[in-house]
Amino acid sequence: MVDVPSDIEIARTAHKKPIFDIGQRLGIPQADLVPYGHDKAKVSSQFLAGQKGGPDGRLILVTAINPTPAGEGKTTTTVGLGDGLNRIGKRAVICLREPSLGPCFGVKGGAAGGGYAQVVPMEDINLHFTGDFHAITSAHNLLAAMIDNHIYWGNGLDIDLRRITWRRAMDMNDRALRQSVGPLGGVSNGFPRETGFDITVASEVMAILCLASDLQDLERRLGDIIIGYRRDRSAVFARDLKADGAMAVLLKDAMLPNLVQTLENNPAFVHGGPFANIAHGCNSVVATRAALKLGDYVVTEAGFGADLGAEKFFDIKCRKAGLSPAAAVVVATIRALKMNGGVAKSDLSQENVAAVQRGCANLGRHIENIQKFGIPVVVAINHFSSDTLSEVEAVRVYAQNLGVEAILCRHWAEGSAGIEDLAYKVVELADSETASFQPLYADELPLFEKIETVAREIYRAGEVVADRSVREQLTAWEAQGYGHLPVCIAKTQYSFSTDPTLLGAPKGHVVPVREVRLNAGAGFVVAITGEIRTMPGLPRSPAAERIRFNQAGHVEGLF
Amino acid sequence: MVDVPSDIEIARTAHKKPIFDIGQRLGIPQADLVPYGHDKAKVSSQFLAGQKGGPDGRLILVTAINPTPAGEGKTTTTVGLGDGLNRIGKRAVICLREPSLGPCFGVKGGAAGGGYAQVVPMEDINLHFTGDFHAITSAHNLLAAMIDNHIYWGNGLDIDLRRITWRRAMDMNDRALRQSVGPLGGVSNGFPRETGFDITVASEVMAILCLASDLQDLERRLGDIIIGYRRDRSAVFARDLKADGAMAVLLKDAMLPNLVQTLENNPAFVHGGPFANIAHGCNSVVATRAALKLGDYVVTEAGFGADLGAEKFFDIKCRKAGLSPAAAVVVATIRALKMNGGVAKSDLSQENVAAVQRGCANLGRHIENIQKFGIPVVVAINHFSSDTLSEVEAVRVYAQNLGVEAILCRHWAEGSAGIEDLAYKVVELADSETASFQPLYADELPLFEKIETVAREIYRAGEVVADRSVREQLTAWEAQGYGHLPVCIAKTQYSFSTDPTLLGAPKGHVVPVREVRLNAGAGFVVAITGEIRTMPGLPRSPAAERIRFNQAGHVEGLF
Repeated sequence: MVDVPSDIEIARTAHKKPIFDIGQRLGIPQADLVPYGHDKAKVSSQFLAGQKGGPDGRLILVTAINPTPAGEGKTTTTVGLGDGLNRIGKRAVICLREPSLGPCFGVKGGAAGGGYAQVVPMEDINLHFTGDFHAITSAHNLLAAMIDNHIYWGNGLDIDLRRITWRRAMDMNDRALRQSVGPLGGVSNGFPRETGFDITVASEVMAILCLASDLQDLERRLGDIIIGYRRDRSAVFARDLKADGAMAVLLKDAMLPNLVQTLENNPAFVHGGPFANIAHGCNSVVATRAALKLGDYVVTEAGFGADLGAEKFFDIKCRKAGLSPAAAVVVATIRALKMNGGVAKSDLSQENVAAVQRGCANLGRHIENIQKFGIPVVVAINHFSSDTLSEVEAVRVYAQNLGVEAILCRHWAEGSAGIEDLAYKVVELADSETASFQPLYADELPLFEKIETVAREIYRAGEVVADRSVREQLTAWEAQGYGHLPVCIAKTQYSFSTDPTLLGAPKGHVVPVREVRLNAGAGFVVAITGEIRTMPGLPRSPAAERIRFNQAGHVEGLF
Repeated sequence: MVDVPSDIEIARTAHKKPIFDIGQRLGIPQADLVPYGHDKAKVSSQFLAGQKGGPDGRLILVTAINPTPAGEGKTTTTVGLGDGLNRIGKRAVICLREPSLGPCFGVKGGAAGGGYAQVVPMEDINLHFTGDFHAITSAHNLLAAMIDNHIYWGNGLDIDLRRITWRRAMDMNDRALRQSVGPLGGVSNGFPRETGFDITVASEVMAILCLASDLQDLERRLGDIIIGYRRDRSAVFARDLKADGAMAVLLKDAMLPNLVQTLENNPAFVHGGPFANIAHGCNSVVATRAALKLGDYVVTEAGFGADLGAEKFFDIKCRKAGLSPAAAVVVATIRALKMNGGVAKSDLSQENVAAVQRGCANLGRHIENIQKFGIPVVVAINHFSSDTLSEVEAVRVYAQNLGVEAILCRHWAEGSAGIEDLAYKVVELADSETASFQPLYADELPLFEKIETVAREIYRAGEVVADRSVREQLTAWEAQGYGHLPVCIAKTQYSFSTDPTLLGAPKGHVVPVREVRLNAGAGFVVAITGEIRTMPGLPRSPAAERIRFNQAGHVEGLF
């Protein structure tokens, strides 16, 4: 067992190189890097525009089994694999999502990898970073202010106050903002209505920024946002309020991908971070495209488990951006497999091969699902010190029976030296060119059938149920020309079903679609199943109480 | 008459130098500049700490007559004077406030000077700049979230829900956020109460950041914030919620002064921007102190007219930071003097010497007031093309009779070449060492008498009236140990009185103190007279509708 210091202690002792050196390795001239301090930079739009047309590297997706409180280490494995590929002599670039500020003050601490597989500067990345999320918050709330201001000055667009769907956004875990009535205070403040705030990662502006190909596309999509409806149910767009131009201006720097480095000085783009249930949960298309031009291998991650994250990565991001992944890695831990096999969190440190074998059903389901998209798979077993050899062997045997290799990875404790085997295997899979990517469903399929297809093929549900109003809404959108959009299903991340307690590999369950939302700017239809919170709360004893400067002037409490 | 292009057109054609060159001129090593792009940088805390002990340059305050819709150009004159001083061979540094994002989308457009006296990059400075205001918003709202979260989990501190004074903040003009009731939605969202948002510049966190001497002082002041009261009226502090540490961490970069340049490549710190009525309205102490170590002359501005801005600059900022100004410039325009002399805005282009002479009463009052602080004064007549020679002459004669020089300045149209005379005069005044700065009142004076002193000496009021509850509150604070604090009077900026329509130099009026607030973290007591809005609204046709990228990809609509 290796004794590993805390994430923030490791990050603090990192031997960072100047960000211009990291950029130089990728062939980005100094003038095309917009520095934010000495260890972060954005890539200029001029450079990005000049990259179009060149050959692309191979795209590797890192996804995972259903998450459990035991932790899977998907970001950690993404960073570790990037380092591992560089270690074996490949030119690899990592693409991650930016962490959200709000959850840092809750239970989560930081989100920039862990152990010896991190991106740095860890503190900056977890706090304000290059200000992208603040810019998104501002653009979102400018639109909100313009809506109420329009109504205040006479409501020329005839917006129905009861049907305004655009809320406000804040990058904070603050349950008290979920639902309120305002403006109160009389004539000079406006017309009272029910409204509330979502966390910034849940904003459609975030999803738009992550899917837009450039500033022009961004502005067009911002204009396409539906902010609400009139009494006759016709949609009112952000464009109608003339908000799209100023919103795009607010986002001009946020659109540029952020370059940082791993602890091993390898390049990583950290850009965008949409919610992985009511949005598509992947880093920006701009960053992924740039990385593909600059690297021979690009390692990226998708949110939550493969049922939510990988499906959306394939069906929304890859479909819309014309990306074609070459291989996928499914991250699993012995501890999480044991939980999927029925073991309580408190008993995870005891060897339990039978539980691991039972839990492998969850892993197997995800492997099968990814193969349906035509992508070759390898399993990464993210090593914990309590794992026993027999438990690891059980996973290897299980995977082998599915024709898939499962490789033990020790990047958390050892950095790239601990993940060489996975790196070689990923190169083998990607270079084999056996991938033949195809989305799960065609653009032409009716919206409800798209939902049914995902539920049947990925969640293995027996049936999708929905009120007539939901089905009619989908039909109405088809009539309005939105039928070609992909669907983005918001479902609990803990289970293939809509019941978060149903672990393992349930099948034949019922998926109830409670509500559908049209994100016309982002370009997908959200189908909400079960309870989805778009504004988290803080726990009884939030991490914020422990985040502070220590005597040496270092930040404590981010982990 | 000179034909001057729009501010943004001028800014766009600026020949900017790399920010490292600007820093080098001030003796700041490259490693101590934290770049934000190639034309903005923060100065490292290590460098700032190393500057303590050296000699200080001379501090020049730029203030103005009461503002009118005609415009005075205080920031423009501050920038112009800095350029002018450099032009005549002096080592001068400019200190400005950061513009607030919200008003940029209202009527105001940008706020980084104008004409050929601007700081650049104008677009960045007016939009997100280096993220300081976003960091302040986050720190403010983290505290708010921790308050409601504390109550949600049992309210161990016994906070009275009706007496929570800490609201939320957003850097947006959004009247719909002024007043609301929430959280609604039942048990899982918390306990409903009346609350609302202020614009970020009105946040006490902003005032604290601008008055704190370093990160330790910042954290102490954040802990001292009073968030509300218990039923027994005892105060609850941010420290009680353990919010101070995380708030300070969020503000660690925001505390570092921002270095930019003028159109003429002279150094300017642009840092902090507290409201000039419910807060003290000056740039940060950290920036001013740094500039004084680095420059022989430091030109800075205070908010609104001298009755509000200069008084607070002297009585709050200089008193608390131990600064001793060497000279003051009062900016006036012929147009604004005419309005103070009774001319309507639509008639300002016609010559009217008599109205100018009448309006000079306002100028004279401000000159007298500044002299009460022991500071020598010069008047800058900020030239407009419609000004006539006779009108200008009237102001010079008026000032001469008060023993003060009034100098015509053409920096807006001509840059530093148009402001040499003022620069020479300012050097003469400052080098004469005739200044003997003293605040208007002693720390020991009771709080209500401090208010009376400002009202009598500066506003020339006949009487200050206040309900018994207000007087009792002040007495209670004195008993709690807050009696030594200075007062920060929130009053309309348009008049010496509390009636915005009373222009010129009214006297003998009544100042009603409607409410007092204790900003224990910032370290002053706010006395509110008349109606003070802490969250602006947008106009019928907000500037946001016209801000967008043009065909060439440049930002239009900021001006």
